[in-house]
Amino acid sequence: MRLAELSERSGVPSATIKYYLREGLLPPGNRLSATRADYGEGHLRRLGLVRALIQVGRVPVTTAREVLAAVDDDSLDHHMRLGAAAWAIPHGAEPDPADPVTEAARGTADELLERLGWTFGRGAGADSPAYRMLVEAISAMRRLGYPCDVAELLPYARSAGEVASADLDLTERYEREEEQVEAAVALTVLYEPVLLSLRRLAQAEESYRRYT
Amino acid sequence: MRLAELSERSGVPSATIKYYLREGLLPPGNRLSATRADYGEGHLRRLGLVRALIQVGRVPVTTAREVLAAVDDDSLDHHMRLGAAAWAIPHGAEPDPADPVTEAARGTADELLERLGWTFGRGAGADSPAYRMLVEAISAMRRLGYPCDVAELLPYARSAGEVASADLDLTERYEREEEQVEAAVALTVLYEPVLLSLRRLAQAEESYRRYT
Repeated sequence: MRLAELSERSGVPSATIKYYLREGLLPPGNRLSATRADYGEGHLRRLGLVRALIQVGRVPVTTAREVLAAVDDDSLDHHMRLGAAAWAIPHGAEPDPADPVTEAARGTADELLERLGWTFGRGAGADSPAYRMLVEAISAMRRLGYPCDVAELLPYARSAGEVASADLDLTERYEREEEQVEAAVALTVLYEPVLLSLRRLAQAEESYRRYT
Repeated sequence: MRLAELSERSGVPSATIKYYLREGLLPPGNRLSATRADYGEGHLRRLGLVRALIQVGRVPVTTAREVLAAVDDDSLDHHMRLGAAAWAIPHGAEPDPADPVTEAARGTADELLERLGWTFGRGAGADSPAYRMLVEAISAMRRLGYPCDVAELLPYARSAGEVASADLDLTERYEREEEQVEAAVALTVLYEPVLLSLRRLAQAEESYRRYT
């Protein structure tokens, strides 16, 4: 398809697509002449992922480029490729390594992963951005005087396990490996507001059931 | 306790506490003289909530003031008071009401709530910020070409239901109603990074189990 059709089918303005092409977020089309190129379904899909990262995830262009480089790295096996892409997605505040509250929170995070039997998080993933984000979140709760120990965290972690399983089920609907990795990144970002809004709706429902 | 002790026990600098007092985010202490006042455990607790909203939730001061006004409104019953406080917490992007994708997303959200039997969300809460956030999240997924129908949403909603139940269990550990409402607001904000980081850790674990 030509640029105009890519723009119409994706709902992304031509000028924005040209910007993504210049920034290397979208691979070039097949050149037909000096001014025309042909784009395929892969471009349409990639455009969805770029929009998910930039519009919904509010990821800066340079970070989006790193995420996409990981998505495109087919030298890795499937698990490593998913991991490299997830690693590059921004993860919020970093913990302060010198702080004693952070040290204690790291102990709680490790104990939680051990209780869950999540061996990957304790091994190769022990210093992943997601692990550091968890340590910082636990530290923040404790500094503010709210309870956040393994007992409190366990029900949240079990729910997160179910969500992650649903996430991977969704990516497995895609046939090719590249599409699966793209979908894993996009769905990680796009389902965050879904999860947070459903939690708040569920809180309202649960409060209605318990207290009225 | 005096301001210096409040500062030490909360870890919040005295200058910041004075700023919160001036902005009305913290109620004044009991005046002992023109320059000294006495603060209680309620001030310490409230300080934790203010920090949760402003530092972790990145809520603007004016919005934090609205949330706290709802927390303090003891003319409401418990369910309504929790709801008023939750309503005031920021909820991300608003949907575009004139857009046909939004209209379809609203239909999906309603069908989802019906399937779940979440009658409150369809009734009094039908135009809540959480509902609008869900509609916008579904619209964003669809515009980007990712699957987001009732079948895909159901497992996420069921997990959200379990999380909300854990949330309310935590608030019920507090004795007084005012403390419960404060905790509900703080835990809603503070557990968001916990949930998102645990989901990403669980994705890594699940990927490790499935693909290696």
